[in-house]
Amino acid sequence: MDSLRVELGERSYSIVIGSGILDSLGEAVGQLGCGPRLFLVTDEIVGSLYGERVKNSLKKAGFEVLYRELPAGEQYKSLQSAEILYTAALDGGLERGGAVVALGGGVIGDLAGFVAATYMRGVSYIQVPTTLLAQVDSSVGGKVAVNHPLGKNTIGCFYQPRLTFTDVQVLRTLEPREVRSGLAEVIKYGVIRDAAFFRYLEENLEEVMALQEEALIRVVKRSCAVKAEIVQMDEREKGPRAILNFGHTIGHALEALTGYRVYRHGEAIAVGMAVASAIAAARGLLKEAERERLVCLLRRAGLPVSSPFKAEDVVRILPRDKKAHRGRPRFVLPLTLGRVEVFDDVSDDEVVAALEECRS
Amino acid sequence: MDSLRVELGERSYSIVIGSGILDSLGEAVGQLGCGPRLFLVTDEIVGSLYGERVKNSLKKAGFEVLYRELPAGEQYKSLQSAEILYTAALDGGLERGGAVVALGGGVIGDLAGFVAATYMRGVSYIQVPTTLLAQVDSSVGGKVAVNHPLGKNTIGCFYQPRLTFTDVQVLRTLEPREVRSGLAEVIKYGVIRDAAFFRYLEENLEEVMALQEEALIRVVKRSCAVKAEIVQMDEREKGPRAILNFGHTIGHALEALTGYRVYRHGEAIAVGMAVASAIAAARGLLKEAERERLVCLLRRAGLPVSSPFKAEDVVRILPRDKKAHRGRPRFVLPLTLGRVEVFDDVSDDEVVAALEECRS
Repeated sequence: MDSLRVELGERSYSIVIGSGILDSLGEAVGQLGCGPRLFLVTDEIVGSLYGERVKNSLKKAGFEVLYRELPAGEQYKSLQSAEILYTAALDGGLERGGAVVALGGGVIGDLAGFVAATYMRGVSYIQVPTTLLAQVDSSVGGKVAVNHPLGKNTIGCFYQPRLTFTDVQVLRTLEPREVRSGLAEVIKYGVIRDAAFFRYLEENLEEVMALQEEALIRVVKRSCAVKAEIVQMDEREKGPRAILNFGHTIGHALEALTGYRVYRHGEAIAVGMAVASAIAAARGLLKEAERERLVCLLRRAGLPVSSPFKAEDVVRILPRDKKAHRGRPRFVLPLTLGRVEVFDDVSDDEVVAALEECRS
Repeated sequence: MDSLRVELGERSYSIVIGSGILDSLGEAVGQLGCGPRLFLVTDEIVGSLYGERVKNSLKKAGFEVLYRELPAGEQYKSLQSAEILYTAALDGGLERGGAVVALGGGVIGDLAGFVAATYMRGVSYIQVPTTLLAQVDSSVGGKVAVNHPLGKNTIGCFYQPRLTFTDVQVLRTLEPREVRSGLAEVIKYGVIRDAAFFRYLEENLEEVMALQEEALIRVVKRSCAVKAEIVQMDEREKGPRAILNFGHTIGHALEALTGYRVYRHGEAIAVGMAVASAIAAARGLLKEAERERLVCLLRRAGLPVSSPFKAEDVVRILPRDKKAHRGRPRFVLPLTLGRVEVFDDVSDDEVVAALEECRS
């Protein structure tokens, strides 16, 4: 069992990473000093696969376990679901010293984390991420939220977990498309901060995609470490953390344009990274050869690198902060594989040109 | 205009206190660097009295103001009200750099504060408390919450305001019973930490109750200072902050016993302080003469000092932490006027005896 410390002062916590370690969760939770009652939250799909095992592990460690499954799907990441969970927690006698354990992907993590942050002014929160995306992205950073009909993630907090417990073996039951989606964020970490990691991915992508244990552990651990380094600099997203949004300007636009029904998050981000790299290359910031290496790696990971939409339709819905940046969207552009910078001066023409280049 | 700093590291903020200063709110908010859009939340009663003035003050300082009145009453401190406010904020384009301004008593402060804490992972929160209780109690401490049908304040966070702006002149439109209720918490601060302040209250209670400006400012400022000193030691209520619950063990029980419909919060706390003092006196911890001074001051403030209920009925619903304290309720008992301590060993018999003594 490997572990990694996220250093955030009194909100520091450990990410435990291993393969086939799910049955040791109870033991790890036992060291946190919370309880005696825990509230295990999952969705129906993950629950049917791992619910019993996790419940038993927690019980064996001496905890009383309240258990609740919600239907799977982004539409259940809502204030209504949160209310269902509050009621179940109060009904079941979850106390201030207790903890919420989130077993699932990003939806369950964000929702259960929001409930942990707001139940009795905050109880301990334990993450057991079961998708690659959740293991490398949402398990670090402390963002918890539910959606509002008028906007995704608009109701939420920054709230750090007490423990993240990651078993890469559970990825075996994940749809391959979900694994690929997670890989987009993994590749992102290489581009924004770690050239050696990018090279490792180039050399070992097949092992990772075959869910080879050692490779997966290494990839999850390094991804979490990169994200942790950035979050440690900027816990509440006031500045440096913006580089985590590499690929997200166009990515979010594609998700919104398609009503969040066409792209997996990582797929949209992959296109976004390809477009941002095209902008950077056109500006002479990024060498053409490096851009090609990125596009090639994304393709090998089975990820899309071009958008089928009219460039103008994409540009039209880009978010624009009118005051701060003269109405131009914010882009994170790579200067080399391993380093990016934030730019607020990218013109619509540049974006259109890059989108069109990626289409062809 | 007077002011007081609550020192909580990067969450430090000022409490501005004065009389007739409401029209300067905009100016004070202007110094915080938030905006350009603000969300002013109030209830129908306070809104009809002060809504326009506050709105104009903010507009004059250059802010765009979204405005929302909710019906008055504790029953509107709910997740449903929060959702109404989220929707209004999103609809009105409140941005992450904006702020929620709470104009009202504890209900509006707690609700709007919860929305500020959770809207877009936290926007600036500005309190304009309009009841004495809110000015001396809920405006310091960072507790924000809404109620759940299964429990009051069970959904919430710790979230510090950026500014508390207190105009004691607005107390002139407050029901006298509400002023008296606030005085219970004021007297509490003297007992738990400041003998000189207790003496000041003994000597100047009439001026305070007549809403004489200077006396009010002094009382509000000293109350906030005492609470701030305690909160600074224990922001997230892990230990020392418990002394703020002097009077609250019995007080909460009386509120619950009567469905929150009979007692104002301060009235229930007044009875609770009298009972706690009787326990302390019976134990020989508190001099009888000091106990009499407290009871006398509460009476002069028009507050109840005895419970009409059967002692056993009150004792039965006291909260008990079974594990930590051998099933005994936790009491804050005065050792002298100006100092209290937390006790976990008070027996039901002692409570019954004290309740009965206070009845007679």
